Amino acid sequence: MPAIVTFGELMMRLSPPGVERLEQAREFGISFGGVEANVAVALARWGWQARHVTRFPDSPLGLQAVQYLRSHGVDCSQVLLGGERMGLYFIETGAMSRAARVVYDRAGSAFATLEPGRIPWDAALAGADWFHWSGVTAGISAAAAACCMEGIQAARRLGLRVSCDIHYRSNLFRYGAAPAEVLRPMAAESTLLLASAEHAEQLFGLAPEPGADAFASCAQQLMRQYPGLRYVAETQRESQSASHHRLSARMAHAGGLLETGAHTLLPIVDRIGSGDAFAAGLLYALGADAPPQAALEFALAAAALKHSIPGDALLATVLEVQTLADGDGSGKLIR
Amino acid sequence: MPAIVTFGELMMRLSPPGVERLEQAREFGISFGGVEANVAVALARWGWQARHVTRFPDSPLGLQAVQYLRSHGVDCSQVLLGGERMGLYFIETGAMSRAARVVYDRAGSAFATLEPGRIPWDAALAGADWFHWSGVTAGISAAAAACCMEGIQAARRLGLRVSCDIHYRSNLFRYGAAPAEVLRPMAAESTLLLASAEHAEQLFGLAPEPGADAFASCAQQLMRQYPGLRYVAETQRESQSASHHRLSARMAHAGGLLETGAHTLLPIVDRIGSGDAFAAGLLYALGADAPPQAALEFALAAAALKHSIPGDALLATVLEVQTLADGDGSGKLIR
Amino acid sequence: MPAIVTFGELMMRLSPPGVERLEQAREFGISFGGVEANVAVALARWGWQARHVTRFPDSPLGLQAVQYLRSHGVDCSQVLLGGERMGLYFIETGAMSRAARVVYDRAGSAFATLEPGRIPWDAALAGADWFHWSGVTAGISAAAAACCMEGIQAARRLGLRVSCDIHYRSNLFRYGAAPAEVLRPMAAESTLLLASAEHAEQLFGLAPEPGADAFASCAQQLMRQYPGLRYVAETQRESQSASHHRLSARMAHAGGLLETGAHTLLPIVDRIGSGDAFAAGLLYALGADAPPQAALEFALAAAALKHSIPGDALLATVLEVQTLADGDGSGKLIR
Amino acid sequence: MPAIVTFGELMMRLSPPGVERLEQAREFGISFGGVEANVAVALARWGWQARHVTRFPDSPLGLQAVQYLRSHGVDCSQVLLGGERMGLYFIETGAMSRAARVVYDRAGSAFATLEPGRIPWDAALAGADWFHWSGVTAGISAAAAACCMEGIQAARRLGLRVSCDIHYRSNLFRYGAAPAEVLRPMAAESTLLLASAEHAEQLFGLAPEPGADAFASCAQQLMRQYPGLRYVAETQRESQSASHHRLSARMAHAGGLLETGAHTLLPIVDRIGSGDAFAAGLLYALGADAPPQAALEFALAAAALKHSIPGDALLATVLEVQTLADGDGSGKLIR
Amino acid sequence: MPAIVTFGELMMRLSPPGVERLEQAREFGISFGGVEANVAVALARWGWQARHVTRFPDSPLGLQAVQYLRSHGVDCSQVLLGGERMGLYFIETGAMSRAARVVYDRAGSAFATLEPGRIPWDAALAGADWFHWSGVTAGISAAAAACCMEGIQAARRLGLRVSCDIHYRSNLFRYGAAPAEVLRPMAAESTLLLASAEHAEQLFGLAPEPGADAFASCAQQLMRQYPGLRYVAETQRESQSASHHRLSARMAHAGGLLETGAHTLLPIVDRIGSGDAFAAGLLYALGADAPPQAALEFALAAAALKHSIPGDALLATVLEVQTLADGDGSGKLIR
Amino acid sequence: MPAIVTFGELMMRLSPPGVERLEQAREFGISFGGVEANVAVALARWGWQARHVTRFPDSPLGLQAVQYLRSHGVDCSQVLLGGERMGLYFIETGAMSRAARVVYDRAGSAFATLEPGRIPWDAALAGADWFHWSGVTAGISAAAAACCMEGIQAARRLGLRVSCDIHYRSNLFRYGAAPAEVLRPMAAESTLLLASAEHAEQLFGLAPEPGADAFASCAQQLMRQYPGLRYVAETQRESQSASHHRLSARMAHAGGLLETGAHTLLPIVDRIGSGDAFAAGLLYALGADAPPQAALEFALAAAALKHSIPGDALLATVLEVQTLADGDGSGKLIR
Repeated sequence: MPAIVTFGELMMRLSPPGVERLEQAREFGISFGGVEANVAVALARWGWQARHVTRFPDSPLGLQAVQYLRSHGVDCSQVLLGGERMGLYFIETGAMSRAARVVYDRAGSAFATLEPGRIPWDAALAGADWFHWSGVTAGISAAAAACCMEGIQAARRLGLRVSCDIHYRSNLFRYGAAPAEVLRPMAAESTLLLASAEHAEQLFGLAPEPGADAFASCAQQLMRQYPGLRYVAETQRESQSASHHRLSARMAHAGGLLETGAHTLLPIVDRIGSGDAFAAGLLYALGADAPPQAALEFALAAAALKHSIPGDALLATVLEVQTLADGDGSGKLIR
Repeated sequence: MPAIVTFGELMMRLSPPGVERLEQAREFGISFGGVEANVAVALARWGWQARHVTRFPDSPLGLQAVQYLRSHGVDCSQVLLGGERMGLYFIETGAMSRAARVVYDRAGSAFATLEPGRIPWDAALAGADWFHWSGVTAGISAAAAACCMEGIQAARRLGLRVSCDIHYRSNLFRYGAAPAEVLRPMAAESTLLLASAEHAEQLFGLAPEPGADAFASCAQQLMRQYPGLRYVAETQRESQSASHHRLSARMAHAGGLLETGAHTLLPIVDRIGSGDAFAAGLLYALGADAPPQAALEFALAAAALKHSIPGDALLATVLEVQTLADGDGSGKLIR
Repeated sequence: MPAIVTFGELMMRLSPPGVERLEQAREFGISFGGVEANVAVALARWGWQARHVTRFPDSPLGLQAVQYLRSHGVDCSQVLLGGERMGLYFIETGAMSRAARVVYDRAGSAFATLEPGRIPWDAALAGADWFHWSGVTAGISAAAAACCMEGIQAARRLGLRVSCDIHYRSNLFRYGAAPAEVLRPMAAESTLLLASAEHAEQLFGLAPEPGADAFASCAQQLMRQYPGLRYVAETQRESQSASHHRLSARMAHAGGLLETGAHTLLPIVDRIGSGDAFAAGLLYALGADAPPQAALEFALAAAALKHSIPGDALLATVLEVQTLADGDGSGKLIR
Repeated sequence: MPAIVTFGELMMRLSPPGVERLEQAREFGISFGGVEANVAVALARWGWQARHVTRFPDSPLGLQAVQYLRSHGVDCSQVLLGGERMGLYFIETGAMSRAARVVYDRAGSAFATLEPGRIPWDAALAGADWFHWSGVTAGISAAAAACCMEGIQAARRLGLRVSCDIHYRSNLFRYGAAPAEVLRPMAAESTLLLASAEHAEQLFGLAPEPGADAFASCAQQLMRQYPGLRYVAETQRESQSASHHRLSARMAHAGGLLETGAHTLLPIVDRIGSGDAFAAGLLYALGADAPPQAALEFALAAAALKHSIPGDALLATVLEVQTLADGDGSGKLIR
Repeated sequence: MPAIVTFGELMMRLSPPGVERLEQAREFGISFGGVEANVAVALARWGWQARHVTRFPDSPLGLQAVQYLRSHGVDCSQVLLGGERMGLYFIETGAMSRAARVVYDRAGSAFATLEPGRIPWDAALAGADWFHWSGVTAGISAAAAACCMEGIQAARRLGLRVSCDIHYRSNLFRYGAAPAEVLRPMAAESTLLLASAEHAEQLFGLAPEPGADAFASCAQQLMRQYPGLRYVAETQRESQSASHHRLSARMAHAGGLLETGAHTLLPIVDRIGSGDAFAAGLLYALGADAPPQAALEFALAAAALKHSIPGDALLATVLEVQTLADGDGSGKLIR
Repeated sequence: MPAIVTFGELMMRLSPPGVERLEQAREFGISFGGVEANVAVALARWGWQARHVTRFPDSPLGLQAVQYLRSHGVDCSQVLLGGERMGLYFIETGAMSRAARVVYDRAGSAFATLEPGRIPWDAALAGADWFHWSGVTAGISAAAAACCMEGIQAARRLGLRVSCDIHYRSNLFRYGAAPAEVLRPMAAESTLLLASAEHAEQLFGLAPEPGADAFASCAQQLMRQYPGLRYVAETQRESQSASHHRLSARMAHAGGLLETGAHTLLPIVDRIGSGDAFAAGLLYALGADAPPQAALEFALAAAALKHSIPGDALLATVLEVQTLADGDGSGKLIR
């Protein structure tokens, strides 16, 4: 099985019971989530060696975070302890026409204030095949972006392949840098890139060729521009309501554009982490030498299945994902 | 912003976890609700001055009720303390083909036994623009009906406009009076009346004109009969199951009949209070000088959105309601 | 009202909150369920005399199980205490494309190790009209099958009618016997048999007549073969997902094949026990001399309604079932 | 084993989690309790035939109450259904210097409004050896007192012995009768009376003989006055705080005054129902022909043990009580 | 009744169930607390006009905080909305020899980043008799200290009396200022000061006179130095374990030194907020013109009673406090 | 830091909320515990390399067990998956005079049915300094005892020291072997033995020398008999009630008998695992070259502190234990 190192912030996730609004909560359920760590958790559960690199405060909350990762078999030997506080996020589940809402509380976190140069990247990346990061990390703070760039460069130097979930959101990059300037050189090192046509336009300054499919066109331009880039993939989501989506996926590679049919998702349990499940599924299936179309179907099934599971993590087996990818979404009772 | 005074019983609401039946509950969640107070809560949250007039027992349960209202910014300076017990209601949430069920336990409550003449209406109504009541209050006890009539008369004397949610249910008026005789003179003072064609027939003795739309016809007759009456509105609900409804609204006014399209509600979280959300939405939008059609759409969106929120109260912002009224029910994740 | 004796294992049912996976549970809700006891509970609630015969360990868990049955009015005077442990089952509720999953933990239970000859069947069956058993009991252990055969024979000797829910599952009969050899002589004594065409083929060695409907053909063959057999019934389930099914039913009797329309079930709360609700509904309606078609509709409504109720037991009144059987699945709020 | 019939109100008991105050509760745990039914539950669990006579509303709450009694093996065949509402009580657990607090909400309950003449006492008392009632029942309403007197008289007529827990509280008898006038003729029929010297003075107009122990003196006077009265008993409680009591007991009988040492209770879990546990313990031990001193020790141990168990009911075995009565309160772990 | 304005941070308080450690929590109960707001809540509940001045983020968490204060009748008209995040604190309850532990997470909170000059102090203090602050506020950030000094000066200018709970902790004042230099000029304006001899030495550079009682000596020196200072008070705590304390109080005033006996606290429910309860009790009793010794006893009873109540707030009535102050700590059941 | 391998069953622990009895539970909290794994968890948390060897079923329950161990940093690389079921235990917490009660449900578990020869002991013990086992393992089944003897022998062969917690209970060894015959040769290999004088008499056939302290005498005899044995230790417990104990410890070694003072434990939160905390504390302190008396005090403090923590595991730091061992049990609030 391949080995991966992921880098990014794992936050404590606090959520009201059921579909209560944050405002009316009298208690919060506790779990953990973060774009990159979610990938590590999924892959570690499926048999990959997975190591997560991050920093937690030296407090009971930081200890819980380590316990969470270790419980799923993620190697925490390179987790730093220090800094002032645990990154948190609060989430209320949506329902019907009421949107889910996330309130981030990560400013000044142990991760956001991590100083460049602190992570011993050669040790941190030892033995790995892949390095995975996301645009969220680059958007948290200048320091986090600098650390991430260190990791990407070390990974390339050491011969690892790099995967990137660009995951650009306008509520990040509040530290003053231009997202495109930060992300472009980082993403340039990727073998696998999760990004949409909008990302390509906003961050890479590309324009779809007239008449061409925007995603396909941008993806091909990216692959021409960055010769190491072999896969560009995205999911597409149609939202009838917060409870009812349709999800499909596309991937560009040397062989052209691959597309999937759509999964109907109703009623949605928890959509957080579905993009990370997609990334993990794609890495897993490609790493198992699945043909690209099969890999894309597996990744989409992973993303679809995630919507049925509370929390950020894709707590599902390869068999469960493959069953859905093979077209059996009937959810028949298993005894 | 306008100011409103609402009058009626606020009950403690006891509900089993999730979709358990009352019979199988081992614990009850505690919240509060009442037809008129629900309107006050919604409007106070949206910036209106809202004062609720009622009576609670001088007990920890009554204290909780006051705390609930105050927490949402409703003025409780005119709440009386006294009487023997807190009005309660027990509710089990329906699901699929199993109906939701409400068990009222309000006989002998502090509100039901409130004596006429006890409420200092001039003080209670001071500074207000609207007085809001419902047919539920008139149906609880002769005393409650008498107090309510006092309030309506004082409101008219002091120049307030009156809004009424007729909300007639056959399980009320068990104290011996004929509903029509009680409600007709009270409703006659309304500027805004929430009522259906059935209400018009049962309570006002009207008959739709042959060939005409029943609601439109009855509403026009009511407006002719009561010159102060400017708006008659109703919601219409189609129930596929307890989890799946379609909701639309209509309103008659001087300009004729206004109608909306239907909102699909699936899966429903909690339908209690949706009529009160409609009333609050209508008052809010009319009070903000929205055109009648826009006001009706806003009110319907408020009612629709309520179905996604646990509890009686419409815990949603003006922006959330307006977004839905503007046609965006996609429930996209807000970060 | 008729009287029934049921025989089988009642297990403690442990389930995570809401739709959590077993793996992520930090607490288990406790309830009870078992194929035959579920029938006893439903019928006792509807006014039948119902007695359940089984064995529980003499422990707080066994005491809870007795309390559960007694609370619903099931006669426990013939429950034996002894053995080593309580049968358990763990269940995670499915959602969307994720299947529900049951993990049984009943090996070595007080029931599975019940010795033949221990149950005083004459006393146990005293006063009863029906004896109800299922293929699950026969599949648990050789001892359980032997005890069950004792009960069937005593029932026939004492003039009771026998109903059987064949409920064959491949994860049973792990004690070495051939299911067909065990079940065939037992089922031969039935007046009412719940079984599908697949059961008829697998267990009774039948083959549908070419061109004929498989179920109708097999059922008629069974009724010809076993002259005491008067009714063969089954439910049919189409699964769009774990949350969305369509359910219909069929019954063969002397008058031919009866069929129902389908109930749409969305979103499903808990499907466990729906087959038992069907059995109870059929027994109840036939026992009340309903015409066969009406009885089948009642049984199907019972099964459909069960999907809306958490836990194994059909906690619903005859009126609720009848309302749904009569076509009203609108789930309108009951005050 | 003897058979007993108990008569009185069983209320739904609603309590905040842990030691929260009622005011701060966001959920209530649900259980049941009532002075006489608590005795029936304890004795039924210990093997007596116990039947409880009362009235519940025909609602899910009333159904739960029946289920509660039945689960403990109490015969509910004489429970009437009807009336308007379930009697409730709310309780906050005390801690340290903060007192526990009970808020009753039983006015207008199904039991309080039970009409005299409705209970078929001959059937209700059939087969019983004892009839047990308390002064609470007499204090609820004139109707309840009248029904209770019917029961006492029928019991005497049918040859049952009567036990009475006088349990006089000043917050009862709000219906206008003088407690002494109501209770004296009722208590006069007792074989066993739980009452203190204060009760004797307040209700029976007795005065302790000068220099004599008040309880002993009053008890002897009562036994002289009512020749059928054979046992007068009481518990004595010293309260250091709401969490820390010392409890002892005394009993007068033909052989004189019996006394026990004191049990130290720290930290108290739930003191409600301890008097009822004492009554049940005394009846049980006397019914098992224990010598009076041993019976008194057993009853006191039952009362003491009750303080360690959440809820009204003494969920403990005879062996557990006897172990404590025999002096082993070490609470050593049982594996 | 007097009117008070309090100034400081109100934090969301997150706590594991029961006595679980933070590390093992799977959910957090939500409440609110802050040194000064706790005083406002207690006094508002007892009938004072209480206004709390602070800043909360404009988020669902900030909204909850406002709702909390309003629910207890605290005037929030001068609460500012803005800043980045809600101040939080995590608390695990201690037990036996295991200490309770608080983890603060308030850096960068809306309050800590409040800019001087933003609070309209004349409006904020309008109508008040007292201004209350604590050393915690001064220790949070330079900005908070500056705002607090503005408030103190405005209060003095407007003729309010100032009370100060010095509450010095070494884990504050991490922003670089010397605590003594910050606190001394602020405390100099106090009429009532809660401080110990250690505070006097550390912050005011005083030394107890040789042979004299340290507290009495320091308090007299402080009163000589600051002529406006009329009362200096402290509580004294002996800890046998985290579950078992003894608490007494002392107060210096013009008439000399007053002392109380000790309250035994076992088993402690929640000690957080007991100092604030003491402050509120002292203000209340002095404001009601109680003699100093009686005021001190009332304040100590308030502090003692707080240990029995979960959460920061003293949810107790004047009567409950007075009963304990009068010597009745028996915690007898109230019906 | 030293490295340890522990061998034994880790069970899922199911417990009612708070102090409810098992019988009244409606939900069970889930945690994990086992005599040897508890030692591994404590030591892994304190920095030892700890590996636990056992077998779990390949089910969601077995997966949770692995996650539990991994979360605390215990190496699970040698955990086998297989067998039929997870070992369970149910526990109700005692209170006052009501004893805590454990109901084991481990018959037929994956561990109990582990076949000898299946564990690759050389790999399992690689790199370790200590091997730790307990008499519980030997008492579960003949197979478990045989596997354990394999482990002990391999450990000795590989030069590891062996520690044994004899932990003899009469409810074990139900598989037919004589405890003494099984345990004596196994215990003979120990360097450190936790055993009492009673154990020495029952299992080793020793008799205390007349007039001598029984423990000291037996321990010296054991050390003479088994030259490798260097430490024999025990805790002594006085139980006033289930909530109130006193705990002290003794240890015999070459230098004679060491004794400690007693810790008062009131009110006890959870005593399960305190013996394992003692074992872990002793191993830790001896491994850190603490003098024997200091090591014994540390071990006793670990055991005492465990009583304050819910669950089997000693979730406490070295610093917390050392603070208590140094005599500070005041439980002062840590901010």
